[in-house]
Formats: sequence, structure tokens, C-alpha cells
Amino acid sequence: MGDARTERWADNRVRMRRKLIDAAIQVIETEGPQASMRAIAAAAEVSKPTLYRFFADKAELTLAISNRAKQDIAAGLAQVRTHPEGSPAAILNSALTGYAALIVEHPHIARFLFQGTENPAARTLENWRAVRVEVADLITLLVGSPSATPEFDADFYASMVVGAVKGAANWWHRTADHADSAEEFVRRMEPVVHAIVAGAAADAGVTIDFDKPLTITVP
Amino acid sequence: MGDARTERWADNRVRMRRKLIDAAIQVIETEGPQASMRAIAAAAEVSKPTLYRFFADKAELTLAISNRAKQDIAAGLAQVRTHPEGSPAAILNSALTGYAALIVEHPHIARFLFQGTENPAARTLENWRAVRVEVADLITLLVGSPSATPEFDADFYASMVVGAVKGAANWWHRTADHADSAEEFVRRMEPVVHAIVAGAAADAGVTIDFDKPLTITVP
Repeated sequence: MGDARTERWADNRVRMRRKLIDAAIQVIETEGPQASMRAIAAAAEVSKPTLYRFFADKAELTLAISNRAKQDIAAGLAQVRTHPEGSPAAILNSALTGYAALIVEHPHIARFLFQGTENPAARTLENWRAVRVEVADLITLLVGSPSATPEFDADFYASMVVGAVKGAANWWHRTADHADSAEEFVRRMEPVVHAIVAGAAADAGVTIDFDKPLTITVP
Repeated sequence: MGDARTERWADNRVRMRRKLIDAAIQVIETEGPQASMRAIAAAAEVSKPTLYRFFADKAELTLAISNRAKQDIAAGLAQVRTHPEGSPAAILNSALTGYAALIVEHPHIARFLFQGTENPAARTLENWRAVRVEVADLITLLVGSPSATPEFDADFYASMVVGAVKGAANWWHRTADHADSAEEFVRRMEPVVHAIVAGAAADAGVTIDFDKPLTITVP
């Protein structure tokens, strides 16, 4: 019975942690990245000491939010990748839609994670690096050959994708009247990302048919 | 005769200023962005007080180097734009080659100007903004209509171009063994930049033939 109790306690801890991160995201979304630990505790309806029992400081909470955002994006990607009918176009569209939802619909969170506001610059770079690695994996998946030719370097193309998305995101954040349209963001980004992936494929010596389903062995 | 003397004096000042900036670029290229005012004065074969008579501090010298780089790029662009046979492809190739020369062949200067090393972050952002404005002008020139449709926004596409170039440049700077090839940089960037410009053209309701000469009225 002790085991069941320990498990229930662990479950509660995970649930509480999730609730606190949810509250933090919500408060940052409303009040901006400078939101205080006090406001976050209030939104979660817990005391400040309780919040601090889960997250030693705001940096730790930031990291948790950051990991959540990355997990959400990764989960979205994984879902598309396991669809046997997923074409490169569909996979890229889904990936872009995930980023667009973050960048366009949650500008405060996006700024918090990626633009260094109230977030140490080193962590911001680390977040971008994580995205870049993920995008490089995706490009490798789409191109189908990790080391087709010596010229092929997924990381270079991932750097361009991330750079272009970053540039577009900065523009979007500067231009408030476009803040509502994730679809429009995807529409504008999509041909650019296709061009980059096509470039990567050319370097790897393959041609990508963006509309033909990928045959991927799902582990 | 007084006028001629004043003019000669002003000429000398301009020449000396140019010489000091040349020396600074050379020293930074060799020693990195942390190069001291002392080392720069030594390279220019002037005393430190002389250097300080031209540039109050390193920030002012940084600004001068930054302006020089921007002028070099702008001069390169202007030259292509005045060629009646210039096609969009040729114009973009020249613009990219200018940036590639800076990014690939002068990595220390590029870092100094654009990556905030020993350079206040605000100035780095300002440098990128200047490049973005310049790229937006170029896109407007290529697309041919400053306000063709309400959807067209040269600044958005310029942000993507700058972002992609920035991403690629960061990759290049991380990967030392590619440091020698500006041509390879241009080859990889070119299709991406074309895709972005084609996207801008589509939003403006026009189609760009990248290989057809532009008819530009040179002022």
C-alpha cells in the first residue's frame, strides 16, 4: 500500500507542477515576460512558498516553460511523422504551424523564450540551439540520408530555416496588427522553408517531391 | 590661397581617418574584436592620442567601421543597379557576394559588427536594422511596385532574408573549415533568397523573371 501512496504523491507532484507551469504561461501571456513569481503563485492559487518549492527561482521556472514549449512542438511533429500518409509538405506545414502558434498567438511566451527578455541571453541561445537541432533532424528525415554526400550538412540548412523563422517572428512581433494570424505567417514562411529543404536535398543528391507521402519506418 | 590650404587640410583629415579605419579593420581581422586602441594606433603608425583625436572612444571607431562596411556593400549594390543589363539574379548575386565577402572572408569584422562581441547589443541591432532597410529597398526595386497590394510588405521579406543570412553566417562562423569559401556560401544562400523574393513578388501580384534584365531608371 505504501507504494500506491508514493505513486499517488508523485502523481500529485507532477499534476501540481503542470498546473504551476500552466499558470506561469497564462500570466506571462497577459502581463508580459516581466510577470512576478507573486503573480504566478496568485494565478495558480498557491502560496509563494509553494511555488518556490517547485521552482527555486524564476530561471528554473523559465527553463520549465521552455521545455514545455519544446515538448509541445516535438509532440506535434511526432504526431505528423507517425502518419504514414505524411508528405514532406504536410510535415513541414505542421512544424511551421506549431511554431506559428507559439510565435503569433503567444507572442509574450515566444519573446520570453527566444528574445532574451527577462531571460538570460545564454538560455535564449540554448533554446534556439535546441530548435535548430530539432529542425536539422527533421531535414535529415525529409532528405532521407544522413550522410548522402560530403556537401550535405543538415545543420547549415537548419540554421537558415531557424534564421528565416526568427527574422519573420521578429517582424511579426514589431507589427502588432498582424499578431492574430498564424495562418498568414505559415503561408508566407512555407515557400521559403521548402526552398531551403530543396537546397538541402540537392546537396544530398536527392530530389524531394513535397507532395508525395514519405515512407518512414516508425520505431 | 587660404581656401586651398583649408581644403588640403580637410583632405588630409579624410585620408588619415580612412587610414585609421583601414588599420582598425586589419587589426581586428588578425587579433579579433577585442583588439585594443593601442594595437590599432600601432598598426596605423600613429600615437594613441592621434587615434583618439579622430575617434573619441572604441564605440566611435566601431561606428566608423560599421559605416564603412555598410558603404562598401551599398557601393557594390549601386554599381550593379546602374548596369542596364542587370537581371534580378545578377543583382541578388552581387548583393549576396558582398555579404559573403564580409561574413566569410572577414569573420572577425562580421562578428564585430553583427554579433555584439565587444560591441553594445543596441548597436548590433542597429547594424542589422540598417541592413534590413537596405534589403527591403532592394526587394522593392526588384518587385517594382512599392505598394502593389496591401499584402505586400517588403520589410517582412527583408526580415526573412536577413534572418536566413544571419543563420547561415552563424553556422559559418561556428564551422571553421568552411571559412574560406565565399562562393560556396553564395551558392547555398542564393536559392533561398530567390524563394523569398519570389514570395514577395507573389504578394505584390507580380512574377519575377530572375534572368530577364530589369529596366531601371537610374537617377
